[in-house]
Amino acid sequence: MINLKNDYCGIAHPKILEKLKENNQQTYIGYGLDDASNRAVAIIKNKFQCDASDIHLLVGGTITNKIVIGHSLKPYEAVICASSGHINVHETGAIEQTGHKVLTIPSYDGKIKGEDVIKIYQEHTDEHMVKPKMVYISNPTEYGTLYTKDELIKLHDICQALHLYLYLDGARLGVALTALTNDIKPCDYTQYTDAFYIGGTKNGLLMGEALVINNSQLKTDLRYAIKHYGGLLAKGFVNGLQFEALFEDDLFFEIGSYVNHLGKLLIDGLNKLGVDYFIKPETNQIFVTFDNQVVEKLSQTLLFEKWIIQDTKTTIRLITHYMLTEDMIQEALLVIKDAIKKE
Amino acid sequence: MINLKNDYCGIAHPKILEKLKENNQQTYIGYGLDDASNRAVAIIKNKFQCDASDIHLLVGGTITNKIVIGHSLKPYEAVICASSGHINVHETGAIEQTGHKVLTIPSYDGKIKGEDVIKIYQEHTDEHMVKPKMVYISNPTEYGTLYTKDELIKLHDICQALHLYLYLDGARLGVALTALTNDIKPCDYTQYTDAFYIGGTKNGLLMGEALVINNSQLKTDLRYAIKHYGGLLAKGFVNGLQFEALFEDDLFFEIGSYVNHLGKLLIDGLNKLGVDYFIKPETNQIFVTFDNQVVEKLSQTLLFEKWIIQDTKTTIRLITHYMLTEDMIQEALLVIKDAIKKE
Amino acid sequence: MINLKNDYCGIAHPKILEKLKENNQQTYIGYGLDDASNRAVAIIKNKFQCDASDIHLLVGGTITNKIVIGHSLKPYEAVICASSGHINVHETGAIEQTGHKVLTIPSYDGKIKGEDVIKIYQEHTDEHMVKPKMVYISNPTEYGTLYTKDELIKLHDICQALHLYLYLDGARLGVALTALTNDIKPCDYTQYTDAFYIGGTKNGLLMGEALVINNSQLKTDLRYAIKHYGGLLAKGFVNGLQFEALFEDDLFFEIGSYVNHLGKLLIDGLNKLGVDYFIKPETNQIFVTFDNQVVEKLSQTLLFEKWIIQDTKTTIRLITHYMLTEDMIQEALLVIKDAIKKE
Amino acid sequence: MINLKNDYCGIAHPKILEKLKENNQQTYIGYGLDDASNRAVAIIKNKFQCDASDIHLLVGGTITNKIVIGHSLKPYEAVICASSGHINVHETGAIEQTGHKVLTIPSYDGKIKGEDVIKIYQEHTDEHMVKPKMVYISNPTEYGTLYTKDELIKLHDICQALHLYLYLDGARLGVALTALTNDIKPCDYTQYTDAFYIGGTKNGLLMGEALVINNSQLKTDLRYAIKHYGGLLAKGFVNGLQFEALFEDDLFFEIGSYVNHLGKLLIDGLNKLGVDYFIKPETNQIFVTFDNQVVEKLSQTLLFEKWIIQDTKTTIRLITHYMLTEDMIQEALLVIKDAIKKE
Repeated sequence: MINLKNDYCGIAHPKILEKLKENNQQTYIGYGLDDASNRAVAIIKNKFQCDASDIHLLVGGTITNKIVIGHSLKPYEAVICASSGHINVHETGAIEQTGHKVLTIPSYDGKIKGEDVIKIYQEHTDEHMVKPKMVYISNPTEYGTLYTKDELIKLHDICQALHLYLYLDGARLGVALTALTNDIKPCDYTQYTDAFYIGGTKNGLLMGEALVINNSQLKTDLRYAIKHYGGLLAKGFVNGLQFEALFEDDLFFEIGSYVNHLGKLLIDGLNKLGVDYFIKPETNQIFVTFDNQVVEKLSQTLLFEKWIIQDTKTTIRLITHYMLTEDMIQEALLVIKDAIKKE
Repeated sequence: MINLKNDYCGIAHPKILEKLKENNQQTYIGYGLDDASNRAVAIIKNKFQCDASDIHLLVGGTITNKIVIGHSLKPYEAVICASSGHINVHETGAIEQTGHKVLTIPSYDGKIKGEDVIKIYQEHTDEHMVKPKMVYISNPTEYGTLYTKDELIKLHDICQALHLYLYLDGARLGVALTALTNDIKPCDYTQYTDAFYIGGTKNGLLMGEALVINNSQLKTDLRYAIKHYGGLLAKGFVNGLQFEALFEDDLFFEIGSYVNHLGKLLIDGLNKLGVDYFIKPETNQIFVTFDNQVVEKLSQTLLFEKWIIQDTKTTIRLITHYMLTEDMIQEALLVIKDAIKKE
Repeated sequence: MINLKNDYCGIAHPKILEKLKENNQQTYIGYGLDDASNRAVAIIKNKFQCDASDIHLLVGGTITNKIVIGHSLKPYEAVICASSGHINVHETGAIEQTGHKVLTIPSYDGKIKGEDVIKIYQEHTDEHMVKPKMVYISNPTEYGTLYTKDELIKLHDICQALHLYLYLDGARLGVALTALTNDIKPCDYTQYTDAFYIGGTKNGLLMGEALVINNSQLKTDLRYAIKHYGGLLAKGFVNGLQFEALFEDDLFFEIGSYVNHLGKLLIDGLNKLGVDYFIKPETNQIFVTFDNQVVEKLSQTLLFEKWIIQDTKTTIRLITHYMLTEDMIQEALLVIKDAIKKE
Repeated sequence: MINLKNDYCGIAHPKILEKLKENNQQTYIGYGLDDASNRAVAIIKNKFQCDASDIHLLVGGTITNKIVIGHSLKPYEAVICASSGHINVHETGAIEQTGHKVLTIPSYDGKIKGEDVIKIYQEHTDEHMVKPKMVYISNPTEYGTLYTKDELIKLHDICQALHLYLYLDGARLGVALTALTNDIKPCDYTQYTDAFYIGGTKNGLLMGEALVINNSQLKTDLRYAIKHYGGLLAKGFVNGLQFEALFEDDLFFEIGSYVNHLGKLLIDGLNKLGVDYFIKPETNQIFVTFDNQVVEKLSQTLLFEKWIIQDTKTTIRLITHYMLTEDMIQEALLVIKDAIKKE
């Protein structure tokens, strides 16, 4: 089986495990107050030019989203996101568990537009409705699409004007930063968001997301919030060492580039096969719609996620990751070619 | 410096890292639905004779407590614990974040008695007060003391009679099960609690706690609760492999025994020095009260936690763990002897 | 000014105040455990043929919704409603404050269809998403439209099949039950919902909603939930006496009929004027779209709510209530005629 | 039966019902934005010299406490109160429902001391524990005792120094302000608290508490919080008219004085009988301990609350209120005398 199901299917990049092994003779202070965590933070600050920001190394995406949203909003304030947003669809009400409403903007491609933010903001006029206070986006989005730098700046400007926080979920930020069509630099995330996180789980770590808080108002007592929501890791240094390994030799970007390269191989191959994309692919997530018999055949050799199941067709997601080789991609393409042909 | 500060100061037992490295060529299904997790669960079921129980491999203690308590109680129901209970004092209101009140029983030694449970239960008579529904204990307790089997059975019987769930926090269960004075077997936890967890973080893992749900009523939809509270690990297989390594060759008990052995060495040495215990030590947590000048001196060579700071005296906690050697314990004892003598 | 702004603009129907005055010499047991509350409950049980149901007299709609939803759902369970649902739009995140997600079905007329419930239910497939567990509807809806008995039964059947609770918000149930086009009897609400509430605030009381719990599973400890969410009225007997007065001589239905009669007068008059309805009116809420200049003129003599404000047109809501007379309706119609004409 | 059970046993003072009746011909704007509410607020501002404060007329004590605490604290912040505090014991976890921990100070007489606040504040040292941010007191306390002005000022000073909010629950503030031993003036509550509420429910109203927010930081968006927690009354003008009636002719203070006068009569009579007080009475709540046979006899003629039930003795609470007459008090004293004598 070729695993195209998700990009968190490998234990960890060998360099990550090596780092842990090399440092396994010492003892550490707990809860992220150790030197390794400090070194990791320093390197990230350098890469993202965010010296003035606070960085917290957390465990996973959902708990990070809970902490940021729960910490930033007053009880009656709400967060705006695309209808496909991870916090809206795939977190089992984890945001509502913090007491906050998620307001949604219908979106075809996973992205939201400034105009839509203005519209939903203006619709919320008084105390009988929640008060919008944050915009949540992810880059790449749930559909693997990318914001352009212009779009990011425009959203940021609108958020500033409306006194909304802009929070960016970067579960796959490594892929976004190294995509062929990307024009957003690391430092832009620092400049144009109030907070964002740099995903480690989907980029080679055992687990771990680096939360970057740029807006000073959101910094106060964040460690209290981390503990309160259940996200404070006892062995914070494990995350410290992992992030140090991820950024000290640019492994973070290396994995991203490689994954995008494999994505490009797959897309080029699919293009030749004339497949029917659900959405034009830009990164390592490729959504393709096949007849159900084709999907059935593919599932004998390929592992993938079924995204939208219809009567005669199914949209599946193929995803590339650091555990795959070019040969595997070519093999997957042959399988697809074969499944389509015999149809 | 000799690290007697906490038992989660090492990255992981070498066998744990080795296990991860050995299995790093494959890909895995996410979210704990993989074969390694299944194998880990099977071994734990065997060790704890809990075939009918559900086991979930989680990340840390606080999030585990949130999940169990938030999942088990109706909104107006409350959990009872010792005043020193971890959920009461050291979780930054994480339980209250789930909406539940923590009712406390004053306790000198970290343990609670059946009579106290009955009393607090009877005081809560009607809908103007919360409804007690769960008793939370930990073994060993926050002060390193141990419940006897008789005490556990009595608490369990009272809980059954009063329709209260009994939930046991086993952050240091490995130490409890291998303590010299222990008479509770693994299977007793299965028989005499509704749920308990087996701590990995403080017993050699990178992170990880195995939650065991014995009471069928608490099993339904628990995976929803795990995700809802932010505790579902994407790479569940990392925990699966760790717990497999921890239990397949009884490393779990081996570490516990070793840690208790070092604790015994330290206690025997302290006894000879005639120190003033805050509470009679039974496991790897040793609470000793020294004059402040002594504590000052000790802190030049030893790392430890200050527990209760008073005007002239301070109670400190010395803790043993798998990264320590017998020589280090002897050295620590010399340091203490020296600090007391020169006084 | 003629007040067509809302139907909770009068203090209370004179018979309500009279009832309170007549009974003001006695003292009562608190918290709704008094005889007057018992009598009110008995009359309501008779009128709605719900002898086996539990009835709780509460203060207002939002707190009632919080209590029912918070009490009925497990933390990760969600409630489904129309996108225009009061709990979704006009309760400032009060439902999310109880930790639950509100899932929405796009709706033009405020109603939801069984097919839509099935669809949204089927989309929620696993523990990465909330688990739908309740359907919330109101009758009349936010747009004053009515469910037919067939529609109600169909929704109920689907909810039963999918193990969803059906909860009906009857803030204006008196209007629904006495509408010309209505074919749902009081006892149908008992038979075809798991819970519903009978609105008093918008039907002549100072305040008060009678919550009827039909499903036994939802009855347990509801008084705990009422107190927990802050909805237990100390002087429950004030609500008891009010509901007694409301139902002992069918004042409830009398007010509803009168309000619908005035609504009919207004609709007939508007029909003659050829106005542009936003939605075909069925009860006492009439949504009409006028040019902005017309709206401006109307606002000099009429009090009303602006519902949807656009560049050149505005949809306003005209509402009838027990404080209005036929003459006032005729006068309002003249004002509208005049405003349109001069345009 | 003579009702000494609680002070919310009457519908409303006749002047309150009269006020509603007199004003029942008009219609009003909803949600407390009406003129009557404005007039009530203006009178209260005058009486309490709190021109710069915000005043909100709410329904009941528990929902008021939820709103103030939920609105004022960050998620991980906690409120400190006496162990007997209403929010700790008698609100069914309503405060925890907002996610906040209640920290308690053991108290014999319902009062807390500045030293205890300092102590509990100092014990909470870091992010592993909640962060104390508010002190909750009530005057009179749960045991009917009163704070002196000096005690209030001292608590206020300590709160200021520690950056804690001081919030005072005035469910029986009318009784406190008119007690014989009272030396706190209305304006002192404005000066020495961040927020307090003036109880109406227990002082002659159908329902209603006037929340006074003195600290500007707590004012922002409070109406959002009121709605979010389910406490926004549709017919806010009913509360407006009630509070206008309560304060325009000092009925508030008149009732308080009368109730204290009756309390004095009862206390004087009890003193002559040589009863065993649980706590020295100062206001209208009188806690007396009798042998169980005596309590049994009393309960044939008197209605009262059993507070602490022991094997042979029971502490009961006798409470005076505006529905009682001097004759009834004398009669009650005869009953008590008789019950003791015959023993």
